[in-house]
Amino acid sequence: MSELWSNGPIPFVGTDDPKAGMGFRYYQPDRVVAGKTMAEWLRFGVAYWHTFNQRLVDPFGDGTAQRPFDRYTDPMELALAKVDYAFDFYTKLGVQYFCFHDRDLAPEGDTLRESNKNLDKVVDRIEQLQRDTGMKLLWNTSSLFTNPRFLSGAATSPFADIYAYSAGQLKHSLEIAKRLGAENYVFWGGREGYENLWNTDLKREQDHIARFFHMCVDYAKEIGLDAQFLIEPKPKEPTTHQYDFDAATSIAFLQTYDLADHFKLNLEGNHANLAGHTYQHEIRVARAAGMLGSLDANQGDKLIGWDIDEFPSDLYETTAVMWEIVDEGQIGPRGGLNFDAKPRRTSFTAEDLYLGHIVGMDTYAAGLLVAAKMHEDRFIEELVSTRYESFDSGIGATVEDGSATLASLEEHALDVPQADLMKAVRSDHLECVKATINNYIIDALAQA
Amino acid sequence: MSELWSNGPIPFVGTDDPKAGMGFRYYQPDRVVAGKTMAEWLRFGVAYWHTFNQRLVDPFGDGTAQRPFDRYTDPMELALAKVDYAFDFYTKLGVQYFCFHDRDLAPEGDTLRESNKNLDKVVDRIEQLQRDTGMKLLWNTSSLFTNPRFLSGAATSPFADIYAYSAGQLKHSLEIAKRLGAENYVFWGGREGYENLWNTDLKREQDHIARFFHMCVDYAKEIGLDAQFLIEPKPKEPTTHQYDFDAATSIAFLQTYDLADHFKLNLEGNHANLAGHTYQHEIRVARAAGMLGSLDANQGDKLIGWDIDEFPSDLYETTAVMWEIVDEGQIGPRGGLNFDAKPRRTSFTAEDLYLGHIVGMDTYAAGLLVAAKMHEDRFIEELVSTRYESFDSGIGATVEDGSATLASLEEHALDVPQADLMKAVRSDHLECVKATINNYIIDALAQA
Amino acid sequence: MSELWSNGPIPFVGTDDPKAGMGFRYYQPDRVVAGKTMAEWLRFGVAYWHTFNQRLVDPFGDGTAQRPFDRYTDPMELALAKVDYAFDFYTKLGVQYFCFHDRDLAPEGDTLRESNKNLDKVVDRIEQLQRDTGMKLLWNTSSLFTNPRFLSGAATSPFADIYAYSAGQLKHSLEIAKRLGAENYVFWGGREGYENLWNTDLKREQDHIARFFHMCVDYAKEIGLDAQFLIEPKPKEPTTHQYDFDAATSIAFLQTYDLADHFKLNLEGNHANLAGHTYQHEIRVARAAGMLGSLDANQGDKLIGWDIDEFPSDLYETTAVMWEIVDEGQIGPRGGLNFDAKPRRTSFTAEDLYLGHIVGMDTYAAGLLVAAKMHEDRFIEELVSTRYESFDSGIGATVEDGSATLASLEEHALDVPQADLMKAVRSDHLECVKATINNYIIDALAQA
Amino acid sequence: MSELWSNGPIPFVGTDDPKAGMGFRYYQPDRVVAGKTMAEWLRFGVAYWHTFNQRLVDPFGDGTAQRPFDRYTDPMELALAKVDYAFDFYTKLGVQYFCFHDRDLAPEGDTLRESNKNLDKVVDRIEQLQRDTGMKLLWNTSSLFTNPRFLSGAATSPFADIYAYSAGQLKHSLEIAKRLGAENYVFWGGREGYENLWNTDLKREQDHIARFFHMCVDYAKEIGLDAQFLIEPKPKEPTTHQYDFDAATSIAFLQTYDLADHFKLNLEGNHANLAGHTYQHEIRVARAAGMLGSLDANQGDKLIGWDIDEFPSDLYETTAVMWEIVDEGQIGPRGGLNFDAKPRRTSFTAEDLYLGHIVGMDTYAAGLLVAAKMHEDRFIEELVSTRYESFDSGIGATVEDGSATLASLEEHALDVPQADLMKAVRSDHLECVKATINNYIIDALAQA
Repeated sequence: MSELWSNGPIPFVGTDDPKAGMGFRYYQPDRVVAGKTMAEWLRFGVAYWHTFNQRLVDPFGDGTAQRPFDRYTDPMELALAKVDYAFDFYTKLGVQYFCFHDRDLAPEGDTLRESNKNLDKVVDRIEQLQRDTGMKLLWNTSSLFTNPRFLSGAATSPFADIYAYSAGQLKHSLEIAKRLGAENYVFWGGREGYENLWNTDLKREQDHIARFFHMCVDYAKEIGLDAQFLIEPKPKEPTTHQYDFDAATSIAFLQTYDLADHFKLNLEGNHANLAGHTYQHEIRVARAAGMLGSLDANQGDKLIGWDIDEFPSDLYETTAVMWEIVDEGQIGPRGGLNFDAKPRRTSFTAEDLYLGHIVGMDTYAAGLLVAAKMHEDRFIEELVSTRYESFDSGIGATVEDGSATLASLEEHALDVPQADLMKAVRSDHLECVKATINNYIIDALAQA
Repeated sequence: MSELWSNGPIPFVGTDDPKAGMGFRYYQPDRVVAGKTMAEWLRFGVAYWHTFNQRLVDPFGDGTAQRPFDRYTDPMELALAKVDYAFDFYTKLGVQYFCFHDRDLAPEGDTLRESNKNLDKVVDRIEQLQRDTGMKLLWNTSSLFTNPRFLSGAATSPFADIYAYSAGQLKHSLEIAKRLGAENYVFWGGREGYENLWNTDLKREQDHIARFFHMCVDYAKEIGLDAQFLIEPKPKEPTTHQYDFDAATSIAFLQTYDLADHFKLNLEGNHANLAGHTYQHEIRVARAAGMLGSLDANQGDKLIGWDIDEFPSDLYETTAVMWEIVDEGQIGPRGGLNFDAKPRRTSFTAEDLYLGHIVGMDTYAAGLLVAAKMHEDRFIEELVSTRYESFDSGIGATVEDGSATLASLEEHALDVPQADLMKAVRSDHLECVKATINNYIIDALAQA
Repeated sequence: MSELWSNGPIPFVGTDDPKAGMGFRYYQPDRVVAGKTMAEWLRFGVAYWHTFNQRLVDPFGDGTAQRPFDRYTDPMELALAKVDYAFDFYTKLGVQYFCFHDRDLAPEGDTLRESNKNLDKVVDRIEQLQRDTGMKLLWNTSSLFTNPRFLSGAATSPFADIYAYSAGQLKHSLEIAKRLGAENYVFWGGREGYENLWNTDLKREQDHIARFFHMCVDYAKEIGLDAQFLIEPKPKEPTTHQYDFDAATSIAFLQTYDLADHFKLNLEGNHANLAGHTYQHEIRVARAAGMLGSLDANQGDKLIGWDIDEFPSDLYETTAVMWEIVDEGQIGPRGGLNFDAKPRRTSFTAEDLYLGHIVGMDTYAAGLLVAAKMHEDRFIEELVSTRYESFDSGIGATVEDGSATLASLEEHALDVPQADLMKAVRSDHLECVKATINNYIIDALAQA
Repeated sequence: MSELWSNGPIPFVGTDDPKAGMGFRYYQPDRVVAGKTMAEWLRFGVAYWHTFNQRLVDPFGDGTAQRPFDRYTDPMELALAKVDYAFDFYTKLGVQYFCFHDRDLAPEGDTLRESNKNLDKVVDRIEQLQRDTGMKLLWNTSSLFTNPRFLSGAATSPFADIYAYSAGQLKHSLEIAKRLGAENYVFWGGREGYENLWNTDLKREQDHIARFFHMCVDYAKEIGLDAQFLIEPKPKEPTTHQYDFDAATSIAFLQTYDLADHFKLNLEGNHANLAGHTYQHEIRVARAAGMLGSLDANQGDKLIGWDIDEFPSDLYETTAVMWEIVDEGQIGPRGGLNFDAKPRRTSFTAEDLYLGHIVGMDTYAAGLLVAAKMHEDRFIEELVSTRYESFDSGIGATVEDGSATLASLEEHALDVPQADLMKAVRSDHLECVKATINNYIIDALAQA
């Protein structure tokens, strides 16, 4: 297996052998499913921070990662070597998109001007490699959380100089988005929240960050950047409470501050779990509000209380996610599936970077196949439309057409005996619904 | 102690004896604190369901409650005897408010009309007793969750007949609110959510319940009911997911459906914990949105995953809640502290109903005393205003007055070295903040 | 589908149709898998309390269950009719085992003697039906938690009269076990723990319950009962803390009180999750200690903090459980898979009782098929043996044969450079392990 | 405040000013409480890793710590400067104990021999400073988790060379314990558990670590080290599951492997919470088993799913912990309160190291004062002895003296009517118990 990642591209190997890792079992970019190619549905992106920068540290251990570019010692040389490695990785893996934070790419200088200068050199190389390979930027973002200056936040920092610095850093990030043709621009506010409520002016901080977002909207307009702006909800970690707790909280914020027309959401499964939700729930909430922007492809462990960003391997979750996407028709106006995932600390070789992505891409491709089969059979569609059919006519229709009042409904209900009422209530046989999804998973993938 | 509750009122006994239960240690309704009497700040209400109806069952055990009215066997006789007991209880305890669900008061009949009839008889008695005692209705609500007909929801039921029934039941509940002069009217949607997302049309269900709320608003206007409408967030239990997950989610819903002008929030500490929040957080979020309506006085156990509705005894939590209230100036336009709390299953005597409320009222009165002392010293106010002072002038002020742009802020930041930036960042000595709150608790209560 | 449960037995329908519920897709009792029939591996049991007594109540709602025997009003008539229904249910479903609490079967009388008398009448009928059908008692147990007398525990009650009552009740339960030929006898201590530690003498309570268990061991010996005694761990609910928190805690208790030779464990997936563990973990811990007795077949929802006892539908979990069983060679000396599961409150028809069990049995049969295929290929066995092979010889072998000392190991390690040490450390490619399990699930079930 | 920590020792300032941080409010080492001085009860220790090495990083941010010794660049110079700073810190703070991991003290070399050499130089300095100051080593331990070589464990590593290395490293750590007169030696197995159960031989790994512990016991005997060996339970993080999950699990392990005579437990509040327990619970469990060794002084946030190691500020928790200690008579045979706590990332100054410890020491001193007052009044003792008094004579006494049998107890219970049984059951008025603890906190600290 060891030569796998040096002689790409990753082959399609099909389903003959149960042993994972030698190639794709399900993912075939050009295979048409539910009216579009797999590549069009899935639009996979590789996350620079996890794949190229993450050393596989944890709070109790030094990094275990072994990477081919570890031999470089000069920071700028290393930065450029990593870009080359990255584009080679994208190509062999067979993805079309990538994502990064500004600070993933190049070392900081002592001032923002110097940091921008370092960054621009690396962006030059990326621009060249994009031209050479056709690789596209799914989204970029700005790290406003790693440097100690952001210890109390960036756009919600109580320190105006830090706020100003954050705005300046963001400005350059938007310019890069423009230059590299980003489809989206993501805001993840890991430090935008509070450590403790007693010393926090929650309202003033939210006013500040809303103002910050408006400035970004204005600047994007000024420079003609048409990337879709996205907020990425997460409930906590590193902060005790993050303002973008979940999809609903983020929607409330955007509505409150007249930002809902300019932003959509970038959702993540592990973040959903940390907020007490399933990933499917977060996607459904965003869809209901017309706010689905893009997705992160990773998974959490519901018995673990921190963000572990595993590569997706849970077929139940990818089936649910892809069913939402098939039902929606697309991930979002410009969305994709960004692998915000890292190998386990015990999967420390460079080869594991390929293996993790293969597993993740295959698990999502499998989810797409299952979802497409359920969709073809209209399994969920009919389950749902039948369940609510009493609202399609009669008294139910008066509710939906707006003509019902408490009085008209009371009149309908006042003298119905309990036994008759219970006739209107039907079992939903949920146990069978869950087993039928199992059956679709087996059937769709056995035929894959 | 056994004669305590038969010869009210509950006396004020002060702080000489550490043994709790003989009377109030802190609560003196007429004592003026921070410009208002304790009674004006706290506006305690007794919850009919927990105090008079709750048999102290749990999912693994039959009820343990021993109640004086257990001797009644005829349902209507029992219903009326309970009302008499309740008003005697309110009077001896020394509260001014009570709360109830419609179905707490009287047995259901076979039809809604018969249920209304049963209910009206009990409401007659309540109306009389209100006149006799001056007791006020903090809020009433409708039980749209206990009867099996609501197994898949009420205003989000997929069955139109159940929706209609719910509307009819709600109509009568609003009429009772009008008749008894309710200060608020609460909606708790324990079944308004989903058991499973696969068979749920989340958007259609939310459209339905929004329509339901609009009908309620219309009908209140029609009958001249001016009670403040309140939504009570809870994340889950009994449903797997409840649409009113937390304050922010409820605010998003109300904004989305043009209901924000007609509703505020009724918050609860135990529900906050189940959603992953502190009680103070939920209150702060509601305050920031101008949506604070009323409060439930209970507490959860953060190591327990279900709603246990303990009587409040945690001074940290009541201090935090009352600080928010003192800072706000009031609980809400018409809010109070409703004891949505029950004794432990092992505190099963009728006397324990008094003891639980005494402990709860005292713990909130203590919280008020601590908050008032902190407020008097402007401890939190100064902590916070100092922390954000860099936004009061200079570059920070340009953010707040709207004149800043990314470009103006970039110019400010572009050449500042990291060491200088770090000078703008100050330690917040959080450990001392927490210890100082301890000190205020001790000092304020030692002097009580 | 509605005639399904009135004209049993449940047919085997195979995998042609993805729609679940019409019959078994995987479960064929006589099919030989990994050297034994499915029926021998799985030994399914039906739980009397959930299937026949559970009204589908929850803390916020009355029961929704609709049952054929609801027409009986006389308690003893109802009790006997339920037994007849139960044996008919077992037969149609095609299981060989059942389980019950004493109080599931018959109403309590005013005294223990009267309760025993009621119970004996029902046990007579069961004995007859066992003879008629060949149905076997997997285990029985005693409800020492439902009646209010147990509000502070039974064998850990601080009240000696309740302790004595519990012992008397248990004595009769053991006699019934003997009479009905129980394979096991289970102790679930839902009230054996504490509500609050401040008023609890944890050591004295544990001494009492250990003494209680010793009395049970003595009495079983006296009457010649050879059922395997089992403790069923659960961390909390209804108590704040239950003494049998998880497998490891129960093992510590049994060892401390010289009970380890007389007891094994009855494990449950939902309880495992509430304790922060996977089901597989609990089974593995019990296996390592030689304490695996029997299993409950249900599943939890890891985002839900209470015991929901869903019918099993998660193929990952049943695959993991069945892999442990195949690796062990049996569930336990006399263990089976007891469906401690109930339909959702929205699956309220009598038919749903069949459907839930069909789904559960099929999901476990599927898990067995997958586990057997992995076992046949020695996938896990080789993964594990390769991973630890450095302990099979050389320095590792000196650890296992007991000859190593800190000094001998230090000598081995003292001068090895870090780079050489890291050569001993291998990536475990965990991402591929998880994907390979997916592949086995698909492959084994597609060929089923 | 900025000169505080440069001009030790920390003064006692008493309770006049609510503002925390200027000095001790409660802690007076020589004050006699419940028969011993505060210093004798509390035996505070400073944790080298958090206080001197911790840079206040988190998974999303670089370290924010500002430390006086940051100016050193040579690793060994830095190591020695930190030791000098540490002893100055201990002295000014007024503690008598300290704790460290081997790797906290000195940089690793390329081989274990070189690492030992670096370490010995620092230990020389510590030995000298111990002589100069009288400072004592509460415990030391070995970092078998930070270096990448331990990525799959140390004493449970599947790689024999790593096991051997760990044993060698541990050997030197025991030699240091001997040399510095350690009162205890702690084993924290952060990597001793599993990432995933599928590739883990749990039994073989536990056999290996048990063998490792036996080697340590043997070597300690060989070199005449009489430090008490302690295991420190933690449920998870960094591993998915840690073998020393909680106190009960650790006790089961020690009993299973004949290690119970050689080990006791070092417990921590934050770890207790992560396992679903209160800190008091873990201490009580250890006490009941005679396994209480030593304590970590920190606190968790029950709404946060990872280890945050806050300085203790919760009076409820320190009151509970100190009540257990006062009731036990001591922390453990040689135990102390080690501050396994770090300032928040926003409390980044060197001064905050003092402030955090002052707050922590004061909160524990306050807890001791409250516990001592409750003990003096025999509040808990009487509550508990009264509650269980039915076991002091009559039928209850036959249970405790071993003469009861199921038959004798059945005879006692067989004809008692339910109403009479319920007379044996008493309310425990838990609400009042909790409020009385509040009252003791206020009363004891107001008089402090």
